[in-house]
Amino acid sequence: MAPPPSSTISRVITLLLKIVMFTLLLASLVVLVTDTATISVDLFPDSTVHFDDIYTYRYVLASIIIGLVYSLLQTAFSLYHIATGNRLIAGDGAFVFDFYGDKAISYMVATGSAAGFGATKDLKALADAAKLDLDDYFDKAYASASLLLIAFFCAATLSVFSSYALPKMVN
Amino acid sequence: MAPPPSSTISRVITLLLKIVMFTLLLASLVVLVTDTATISVDLFPDSTVHFDDIYTYRYVLASIIIGLVYSLLQTAFSLYHIATGNRLIAGDGAFVFDFYGDKAISYMVATGSAAGFGATKDLKALADAAKLDLDDYFDKAYASASLLLIAFFCAATLSVFSSYALPKMVN
Repeated sequence: MAPPPSSTISRVITLLLKIVMFTLLLASLVVLVTDTATISVDLFPDSTVHFDDIYTYRYVLASIIIGLVYSLLQTAFSLYHIATGNRLIAGDGAFVFDFYGDKAISYMVATGSAAGFGATKDLKALADAAKLDLDDYFDKAYASASLLLIAFFCAATLSVFSSYALPKMVN
Repeated sequence: MAPPPSSTISRVITLLLKIVMFTLLLASLVVLVTDTATISVDLFPDSTVHFDDIYTYRYVLASIIIGLVYSLLQTAFSLYHIATGNRLIAGDGAFVFDFYGDKAISYMVATGSAAGFGATKDLKALADAAKLDLDDYFDKAYASASLLLIAFFCAATLSVFSSYALPKMVN
């Protein structure tokens, strides 16, 4: 049996990267939105803290959701491409869409992760100084930002691939 | 007089972008490292808060310095290229260096800016709630992150240029 042409291999590798990225983003989303803690403040002994009580985590959520929608769309495009041999977007448009899309989404995911790590580091230090027991809360936030960081590595790799695919269009 | 060839124009535009990026990073650095405030805590009525008292701002500083070193190096490369017509790195290496370098630095600057904005937003809210007068301190941090954001737009544009230059190598 003849080996598949290298373009088929690269399509499958790209598809796998997109699926891994989608899965990591989904895991990051679940960890973030289920991140709650109970603290005791003044008159309210059982106050619940949600992830969206921290402004930065709302940006992290936004970056995850935009990344999820994009990687789902891209996975569908890849499956269509592998199944039919044609691209859903005709002509050079597909290369340009992939190039700018992958680039923009990789920045989005990178900034979401960085903002999440930064805010968590400083707020955790403040919570420790104030003797608030929020270790689990911030550890879950770290976990979410870490998953997002690995998703970023997938996004950055996909962005390198779609940059190297540009010559196919220019010629 | 004949117009300069388009490659000369694109080299000059690239050089200008690198110089603007370097200037913005330098301004961002100055604003960040001179960001201090005086607060009154317990026994110490005149405690000085420096920028590096916030962990995230140390990362912001690191991203600025790495960006500065890289954009200075790239400016030197561009000047050499325009002056002599040759690239300092021979062969395909220059394209690959520009491509991966621009990409990595644009992620570095983007994450520095995002981390700076996120931490500032949440810490400012906490300082306000604690009735600490740190508005000027956090406003300067915002200014530094904003300059870094504009520097990121330069870096992202340069990264698009160096991606489009890849075909010159591949062929």
